[in-house]
Amino acid sequence: MLNAIADLSGHSRAEIAARTGLTKATVSSLVDRMIGANLVVEGAAAVRTGPGRRGTALFLAPDGPHGLGVEIGVDYLATCLIDLTGEVRARWIQSADNRVLSPARVLSRVTKAVRTALAEADRMGVRVGGMGVAVPGLVESATGILRVAPNLGWREVDVRGELRRRADLDDIPVLVGNEANFAALAELWQGTGPRDFVHVSGEIGIGAGIVVDGGLFEGVSGFGGEIGHVMVDPRGPECACGARGCLERLAGQEEIYRQAGVLDDRAPEELITDLLDRLAHRDRRSVAATRSAARWLGIALSGVVNLLDLPTVVLGGTYARLAPWLWEPLRDELAQRVVSSTWSPVEVTASTLGSEAAVRGAAGSAVRAILADPDPYVTAALA
Amino acid sequence: MLNAIADLSGHSRAEIAARTGLTKATVSSLVDRMIGANLVVEGAAAVRTGPGRRGTALFLAPDGPHGLGVEIGVDYLATCLIDLTGEVRARWIQSADNRVLSPARVLSRVTKAVRTALAEADRMGVRVGGMGVAVPGLVESATGILRVAPNLGWREVDVRGELRRRADLDDIPVLVGNEANFAALAELWQGTGPRDFVHVSGEIGIGAGIVVDGGLFEGVSGFGGEIGHVMVDPRGPECACGARGCLERLAGQEEIYRQAGVLDDRAPEELITDLLDRLAHRDRRSVAATRSAARWLGIALSGVVNLLDLPTVVLGGTYARLAPWLWEPLRDELAQRVVSSTWSPVEVTASTLGSEAAVRGAAGSAVRAILADPDPYVTAALA
Repeated sequence: MLNAIADLSGHSRAEIAARTGLTKATVSSLVDRMIGANLVVEGAAAVRTGPGRRGTALFLAPDGPHGLGVEIGVDYLATCLIDLTGEVRARWIQSADNRVLSPARVLSRVTKAVRTALAEADRMGVRVGGMGVAVPGLVESATGILRVAPNLGWREVDVRGELRRRADLDDIPVLVGNEANFAALAELWQGTGPRDFVHVSGEIGIGAGIVVDGGLFEGVSGFGGEIGHVMVDPRGPECACGARGCLERLAGQEEIYRQAGVLDDRAPEELITDLLDRLAHRDRRSVAATRSAARWLGIALSGVVNLLDLPTVVLGGTYARLAPWLWEPLRDELAQRVVSSTWSPVEVTASTLGSEAAVRGAAGSAVRAILADPDPYVTAALA
Repeated sequence: MLNAIADLSGHSRAEIAARTGLTKATVSSLVDRMIGANLVVEGAAAVRTGPGRRGTALFLAPDGPHGLGVEIGVDYLATCLIDLTGEVRARWIQSADNRVLSPARVLSRVTKAVRTALAEADRMGVRVGGMGVAVPGLVESATGILRVAPNLGWREVDVRGELRRRADLDDIPVLVGNEANFAALAELWQGTGPRDFVHVSGEIGIGAGIVVDGGLFEGVSGFGGEIGHVMVDPRGPECACGARGCLERLAGQEEIYRQAGVLDDRAPEELITDLLDRLAHRDRRSVAATRSAARWLGIALSGVVNLLDLPTVVLGGTYARLAPWLWEPLRDELAQRVVSSTWSPVEVTASTLGSEAAVRGAAGSAVRAILADPDPYVTAALA
């Protein structure tokens, strides 16, 4: 029913009863409980859609429980707070080369960032109803354990357990997931795009989130979407995963920077700004480096589309910012290699969420979990 | 309810009522109608599972409507008749190099094969309730049109319309689908294997059928599973599809025969028998050719598993027969390239259906369509 309120935002109890098939009495009693728990608020009179008096309009409470999103990037930490309607209410981002630090050191920084966000929520007078943590690696869906994050050099880290313990999160549900999957969900929840797509985000690693018929496709154990380790050149360089010729070794952010001649120890934002500046000035090395990455990416994405027949590719992360220089070679590869492209051309779009997608998806997942099953939250809030 | 009878074969009306939640009176009236249409028969008394008298056991009628399966292979034509329980009751296969003939010539041969099967059904005293046609190309699910079959050199062929017209099939529903998808369904319906797998069949072309949670994953337009055109070597040879380095150019049956030195104009069965014989005698060229194909196949399948996190690979078609020589290099590539393989090892099995899988899947789809929605058939049968 909360989802009905989200979908029918601004409508009355009677309209929600009609839509959900519940009786008006049931809806009213549930709505009262949700108003009590500050999940729902009453607003101006609803638009009249039939005979009878106008009902009071219901809305998801903007000051209701917030979702706290955390992203442990390879070279940054990000956090954000979003409300029940999906609006970002606060955000933080810091550069941090997490590759050179131990998991314990990184997790203590994450803990500090979580405490900052919790304090801000307190200051705003809102409760944090759930937390989502995006990590650049394989997260087993059954256990929530991060099995491996090759670009961080982490193996077997119980991120949820560690953060619970370090940040005293006993009463807040914590979800841990792959950053590419969270980014794809954020893209889906924007609500303006397609319901079947592959979202590919290029950072240090390259990850894909596969969305089929409006739902995330994660595979049997949650390990799907590892496009970064799809092989594109059998004679290619060795990858952090141990195999040879993986896409991320040939089309990842660092390889683009290296080939363009901009790679050094500057912060990520400075590197990409430098590259974009050189591209704007048609610097030959930068253009060649970006086009080369686009071709490898196009080859791997052609494989994805040949296998899954997805009509849309969404470029995310750094790829979204490089999109104007990626389009042409990427589309050429797709047109040439996707056998169904004559009948079912592949659309390529760029995400507008940029590098914020994963942290927003993580926070959004926390909020959506409350909307999908509000009972635990309501029970705690009314206790 | 027919599916309940299929699942509960040998059980009584009362047991089926309990399972489906329908009343006994409803079940009895539906069962009578299905007995009238010869979809269901009564047999020996059911096993007693509770108090009260034993009910009469119900079974899917072995002499009920049969499914007619047709496969238009690149180098053979196959047909079969299967009954409602999935048993093959008759089968035919003929070599035919369909690449050198026009679509019209091939379809007239197919029509002859269909007439032979219909005559046999007549002789057996059974009706053909539906037909499934497996083709080695892209079939658009919305229209049933074969858009392209690169290895046949066909484009835009309305296989269903043509066969309806040529073989006077006005009253028989006809399904057209990709052979790799039908083969994967046949594998699934064997009922003994996993519910999440990729079935890869190596013939002249290479096709994959992706099964997720017991259902076929075909993609938005039905064009999924085109593993044959996944690129595995950017410097590889040109493919019939126009692109370079496609899996089927490097690991397809013809490339194995060519590298092994057995390729000539003999019939397909003679070629594979020759190759298997040489492999059994450890012929160096044949072993090297098969191992090379296995490595390329392993690279492409690693991509599939990295993207979809499927726990099982089923080798079908020619690959099933070559399986003993494919295992080792294939498993090596999967273990090395699948990033989740440490936590979720990929099982590789060989289909026992061999080259019959696609035609059985096509016939099975026709029969399953009747079980899923028997009304049209029952109405026609009782008219």
